Amino acid sequence: MRLNKNQLIQNFVEVRRETQCLCDPLEIEDYGVQPMEDASPPKWHLAHTTWFFEVFVLKPHVEKYVGFNEQYKYLFNSYYDGVGERYPRSARGNLSRPTVAEVMEYRSYVDQKMEEILLAGPSEEIERLVILGLEHEKQHQELILTDLKFNLGHNPLRPAYRNNLIPPQSDCSESNLDFIVFDGGMKKTGVFPREVDFCFDNETPKHRVWIDEFAIASRLVTNGEYLHFIEEEGYKKPTLWLSEGWSSVQNEHLEAPEYWYKKGDVWFEYTLGGGKELDLNLPVTHVSFYEADAFARWSGARLPTEFEWEAVASTRMIEINEANLMNSDRLHPESAKNVTDISQLFGDCWEWTSSNYRPYPGYKALEGTLGEYNGKFMSNQMVLRGGSCVTSNNHIRDTYRNFFYPADRWQFSGIRLAKDV
Amino acid sequence: MRLNKNQLIQNFVEVRRETQCLCDPLEIEDYGVQPMEDASPPKWHLAHTTWFFEVFVLKPHVEKYVGFNEQYKYLFNSYYDGVGERYPRSARGNLSRPTVAEVMEYRSYVDQKMEEILLAGPSEEIERLVILGLEHEKQHQELILTDLKFNLGHNPLRPAYRNNLIPPQSDCSESNLDFIVFDGGMKKTGVFPREVDFCFDNETPKHRVWIDEFAIASRLVTNGEYLHFIEEEGYKKPTLWLSEGWSSVQNEHLEAPEYWYKKGDVWFEYTLGGGKELDLNLPVTHVSFYEADAFARWSGARLPTEFEWEAVASTRMIEINEANLMNSDRLHPESAKNVTDISQLFGDCWEWTSSNYRPYPGYKALEGTLGEYNGKFMSNQMVLRGGSCVTSNNHIRDTYRNFFYPADRWQFSGIRLAKDV
Amino acid sequence: MRLNKNQLIQNFVEVRRETQCLCDPLEIEDYGVQPMEDASPPKWHLAHTTWFFEVFVLKPHVEKYVGFNEQYKYLFNSYYDGVGERYPRSARGNLSRPTVAEVMEYRSYVDQKMEEILLAGPSEEIERLVILGLEHEKQHQELILTDLKFNLGHNPLRPAYRNNLIPPQSDCSESNLDFIVFDGGMKKTGVFPREVDFCFDNETPKHRVWIDEFAIASRLVTNGEYLHFIEEEGYKKPTLWLSEGWSSVQNEHLEAPEYWYKKGDVWFEYTLGGGKELDLNLPVTHVSFYEADAFARWSGARLPTEFEWEAVASTRMIEINEANLMNSDRLHPESAKNVTDISQLFGDCWEWTSSNYRPYPGYKALEGTLGEYNGKFMSNQMVLRGGSCVTSNNHIRDTYRNFFYPADRWQFSGIRLAKDV
Amino acid sequence: MRLNKNQLIQNFVEVRRETQCLCDPLEIEDYGVQPMEDASPPKWHLAHTTWFFEVFVLKPHVEKYVGFNEQYKYLFNSYYDGVGERYPRSARGNLSRPTVAEVMEYRSYVDQKMEEILLAGPSEEIERLVILGLEHEKQHQELILTDLKFNLGHNPLRPAYRNNLIPPQSDCSESNLDFIVFDGGMKKTGVFPREVDFCFDNETPKHRVWIDEFAIASRLVTNGEYLHFIEEEGYKKPTLWLSEGWSSVQNEHLEAPEYWYKKGDVWFEYTLGGGKELDLNLPVTHVSFYEADAFARWSGARLPTEFEWEAVASTRMIEINEANLMNSDRLHPESAKNVTDISQLFGDCWEWTSSNYRPYPGYKALEGTLGEYNGKFMSNQMVLRGGSCVTSNNHIRDTYRNFFYPADRWQFSGIRLAKDV
Repeated sequence: MRLNKNQLIQNFVEVRRETQCLCDPLEIEDYGVQPMEDASPPKWHLAHTTWFFEVFVLKPHVEKYVGFNEQYKYLFNSYYDGVGERYPRSARGNLSRPTVAEVMEYRSYVDQKMEEILLAGPSEEIERLVILGLEHEKQHQELILTDLKFNLGHNPLRPAYRNNLIPPQSDCSESNLDFIVFDGGMKKTGVFPREVDFCFDNETPKHRVWIDEFAIASRLVTNGEYLHFIEEEGYKKPTLWLSEGWSSVQNEHLEAPEYWYKKGDVWFEYTLGGGKELDLNLPVTHVSFYEADAFARWSGARLPTEFEWEAVASTRMIEINEANLMNSDRLHPESAKNVTDISQLFGDCWEWTSSNYRPYPGYKALEGTLGEYNGKFMSNQMVLRGGSCVTSNNHIRDTYRNFFYPADRWQFSGIRLAKDV
Repeated sequence: MRLNKNQLIQNFVEVRRETQCLCDPLEIEDYGVQPMEDASPPKWHLAHTTWFFEVFVLKPHVEKYVGFNEQYKYLFNSYYDGVGERYPRSARGNLSRPTVAEVMEYRSYVDQKMEEILLAGPSEEIERLVILGLEHEKQHQELILTDLKFNLGHNPLRPAYRNNLIPPQSDCSESNLDFIVFDGGMKKTGVFPREVDFCFDNETPKHRVWIDEFAIASRLVTNGEYLHFIEEEGYKKPTLWLSEGWSSVQNEHLEAPEYWYKKGDVWFEYTLGGGKELDLNLPVTHVSFYEADAFARWSGARLPTEFEWEAVASTRMIEINEANLMNSDRLHPESAKNVTDISQLFGDCWEWTSSNYRPYPGYKALEGTLGEYNGKFMSNQMVLRGGSCVTSNNHIRDTYRNFFYPADRWQFSGIRLAKDV
Repeated sequence: MRLNKNQLIQNFVEVRRETQCLCDPLEIEDYGVQPMEDASPPKWHLAHTTWFFEVFVLKPHVEKYVGFNEQYKYLFNSYYDGVGERYPRSARGNLSRPTVAEVMEYRSYVDQKMEEILLAGPSEEIERLVILGLEHEKQHQELILTDLKFNLGHNPLRPAYRNNLIPPQSDCSESNLDFIVFDGGMKKTGVFPREVDFCFDNETPKHRVWIDEFAIASRLVTNGEYLHFIEEEGYKKPTLWLSEGWSSVQNEHLEAPEYWYKKGDVWFEYTLGGGKELDLNLPVTHVSFYEADAFARWSGARLPTEFEWEAVASTRMIEINEANLMNSDRLHPESAKNVTDISQLFGDCWEWTSSNYRPYPGYKALEGTLGEYNGKFMSNQMVLRGGSCVTSNNHIRDTYRNFFYPADRWQFSGIRLAKDV
Repeated sequence: MRLNKNQLIQNFVEVRRETQCLCDPLEIEDYGVQPMEDASPPKWHLAHTTWFFEVFVLKPHVEKYVGFNEQYKYLFNSYYDGVGERYPRSARGNLSRPTVAEVMEYRSYVDQKMEEILLAGPSEEIERLVILGLEHEKQHQELILTDLKFNLGHNPLRPAYRNNLIPPQSDCSESNLDFIVFDGGMKKTGVFPREVDFCFDNETPKHRVWIDEFAIASRLVTNGEYLHFIEEEGYKKPTLWLSEGWSSVQNEHLEAPEYWYKKGDVWFEYTLGGGKELDLNLPVTHVSFYEADAFARWSGARLPTEFEWEAVASTRMIEINEANLMNSDRLHPESAKNVTDISQLFGDCWEWTSSNYRPYPGYKALEGTLGEYNGKFMSNQMVLRGGSCVTSNNHIRDTYRNFFYPADRWQFSGIRLAKDV
């Protein structure tokens, strides 16, 4: 199903503008910092998403295209070996040049060329690449926010990213955690590209999976529940942890989720709106897979598989419309709205599953260099599902597979429990 | 199903003796070396397998049991947090004391106490622990050989472990590699403990898995086929590799399997019988998961899942009797015997699967400290199936799940290809 | 000898302004980058030099002094354990806040308070501290330039710091390198504080040293001479090197001085004015002690001791007035002006001596926390003498002892040869 | 001055035998362990000292000499780049082969060839090399003992090297620590080779040094005095330490000298005779330069320079005869015998000086590959003087310069204080 031309242009303009809007609250100094290897500077995200269109659309498809700056091919390549050498990932924070103004000029230059192509009526091939480029850019919108949070949240001054965010709803009146039973059976998982406007290759192909009967929690685990785990010495009992999780607890002296800190006896949490006293009703977030797994074991439960999760979510796609995503302008998870049924499947926090990120049966990566987009990362990572409070509204769906290393904590990652029946 | 008393005693004596026999060809100097963290010294294996019986059988079940040496509880604990502190794993090669003679004395002391218990008629609980202890010891028999190979094979003098091994059969007359198609469908994977004499907890419970139709290679990949991959610059093309595999190629300057080396233009392979000119008919071994995966991609194939593998193997358990296992006294993989059907499923080389080592649905670890045996390692590792030429004869089966990190190469790990149909 | 009040105020204003002027050519983005641990961001230098006055003058000496921001005490402490905890040195580049504007405000705030004190007529104690603070700030002026050079020079875009620098004189007409003989004898080295307006504690006390007759080179080693060393495979012959120097060559793959690079067969050198084709007449700079020592050995010479150097320099203090220092506005070493006698003793490049940085006999560190200024670094470093093309004009003298680790290359460090007679 | 032929043969036989005698108390297992990079296995020392004679005497001077094993040239090269490639130093503990028996055979083989040369009447050149080889072997005798101590002393079982050592004298009746004043003046330091039977190149040439009047402690610092430093929180006060010393305290969690340990409230010390309750009268040993320097600062004193030390020692060479050296068969420092004058200058503990290990003015390394013996280590190390309780009797002298890194603690290194007058 093809978009009409105007729709595509409008999408292009909106997504590209949205990325820049996210940076409006920043000081120039905030654009360049890389406080850990995973947390790239906003300036790099702004340039790399532009590079994507230049390298995959303009260079191969525009005759005599003249690049904005030939060195950018090297500087802003993220990980595509097929494109050539690249600047070391860990040193992105060392690049004081190009300046923010130059990167914005780069964006304008590429945007103008792109708009010319789109106005001229792009081929199906180009349309496909543009849509991929926009979904790619939405992923980087989320990363801009999580990487900024890491930067600002680890600065001893703990500055807020924005002071005018909408406070997340915190409702303690209906806090019971229920486990809701789902039938087992043969399920369809994943998607065929021809059936949808867009999907990533790692969601394909649709295939059958057998699932046993299971129960899944009606909502995410809260700060209050997680604090209980801490107070019961969860971080001091090796038998609750996977072996590598326990190593991470010891080597990194973990005692609480990322961004929690104590003043005297009071727990606080750094948010994109600044430091706040810990709200026990809100979902716990910024926990690693190891922490999620240990918490689940301590609770007498487990994490769901990605197939269980998708089986549940596939019947509740409608809820995406009310989900707490980036455009809700909270940029923080909030308490469950409806606790008589499953809630919070979409938005709020990415949910760690117990599934490794591996190819689906029959998986084929995209052809050519874009085949490096997803497939080559299918080792040592875990699948997360459902999007978060900083995920773009038109980006998430039931089949969407996100993936991070089990020790990663800088994403908005939370915990949904499951149980055997 | 319980063993009769005499059978258990006989098993105990035989397995314990077998471990020591494996060390007979060694010089005293060979018992203590740990050339990398994973490759523990034989002396440590001899002591740790004894520690296992002392800590899990004698101490809890023999009244007023007096330990051989109270510090051994600390020195020879491998990874059981529930038992207490332990000597650092990476420093096992630093322990010149206890001497080999003292460790042998320790073995005699514990063996005698164990035999007293077994003669007295052990409880079902003790019997269960003894059987586990013997299976544990068989695992360490394999490790003694792989760890010794690492030690001797990385010594510039390249001494043989034994000079009187039976040469592996090398048959080039029937070398065609066929892909044999198997029906998909709902399969049973794993085992219920009550149905077998013994199984590890990680093989349980039996459960249903849906598998699509697939094809599997009739034999293991050979040195000749792998050499072709090398000559076609497989180690120089990043797009053949998972991202972390490519990093390992670059960081460790990988160019060939572990133990391959070149003199002039001729390839050699270090074996437990010493260095040999590379035999192109023999199965390639000592490759990492990353190498297996890259080779498969280059071949236009893939690795099988552990479920596919088990579906095939479960119908061919009879072949274990003719498999090239430790007791074949070759200690090296040999060429396929029967190439009109699937061969080499058991013995020769552990076969990397594309499956992550994760708990089966409904998995429960053993109770108490022994729960640390398997479950806590269920992250970041891959499943290997089928046993190798250094696996004890009565140890392997169709449901057996071995697991190593994807970069590991010091085990006898090889490649069986599979394909979608 | 005390300065009159107006002189001190004038000095204060000028030095503080000079530091900021050095940053005028910068983009905001350049202020925050720390491309290696030793190369601190300009913003940090601007704040730390201000912190110095706040912590050592204002807080102890101004009643009810209210700090600009209490967290700055922690953020901008360089290494004074006596002041308390400090932000990790290696993470200075992660601090996007305070912004440059905020740091400039901090400077204004402290400057105003300082000027109030100075106008009011400072005590002798305060005067002493202010003078120390200004000399401290001059040291950081040099570091701002060397750290910026490292940042910009390692950016693949290689931007110039300034495009309007005066080109260094390059004169090949009088290039002979002479060795000039000096008598040995009992020499006075160092200084008594009471005899000078200012000196650092590490230059004290004046003491006697016996020196044998020696010869010293009339000028610095040139790029041309050093290139000869490279072409004669100096970087490939271990016997030319100290053992640790050879390790650094191998581990860091050294082949030339820092900032040299090749395009095709042509050597270039990055300078603060941008990349330039290598000028063979200019002094070689940005070499480590190990490189200087290896070059000297290859030349059949050696490096001078700091005592030999000082014996020569103490008779030629007049030349400071014509030296190529920061205010010459070249910011790069230039060729020797006068080759009939010793030249280039001051300015151009710091000269590695063969002397370890150790306390002089009878050395006493400053009292209190300021005792940490110099003395605690007196291990593992080598003494350099004479100042460089980025040293402040009123900062260098014959007794001045600079010190860096023998592997350091990011300072303007060069080579003067000496010989036994 | 040349030795007569028989004297040289006798020396050769005795020194070579002495090395092996030191290993008599060992288990075979003890010969191969390398618990840290600096602490080489005894087997390696036995082979390397033999390699020295083979490579520097037999190969160049015996026509058609056939080496014992051609790979030993590579395996047992310590650090001579001029000899060729070498086995990595950090992996010496991984070599289970050659066995101890094979290494002993190697020794016999080379000894026999050497004795043939010596009987035939060696040239002056060979004689010079043999003497150097024997002094080299005496250095390794000391290292065998210090490296063994590290191995056995870090084994949780803490086995004794020998149980029949003579207990060190511990005399508390005359424990006053006096500072004895020495005149300053122009001193001669070092030696001319022609004036002595033997010296290392690093002791040459004799040269003049000016020394100011100073005072030096009559004896070494005791365990009791050092314990006082610990109890007064010496390890918790950064201002007592050099900056890098303080880093080592924090990074390695130092709280006491190497080999001290506590049971309950009681301090113990591991010695080559096993663990002993700490004897407060004995000299403190196994401290780093940083610890010695911090202790001196805390005491209001300083360490002597190597020139001060030599000025004192050169007038007391006679005391070597009564010194507590290796042949005293204590292998541990003992209390001062004579406290009315300077004592303990020779033997007991190596004394850290405040002098960096640098070449003397006019220093020339030996010609050829043997030039790598000493000179290339002249960076980043400190000089120690006087020998220790494990130094060979005929090996130490007033001009002898030993050198170790300032953080090293595994040698018998102690503290003698000095003061300005």
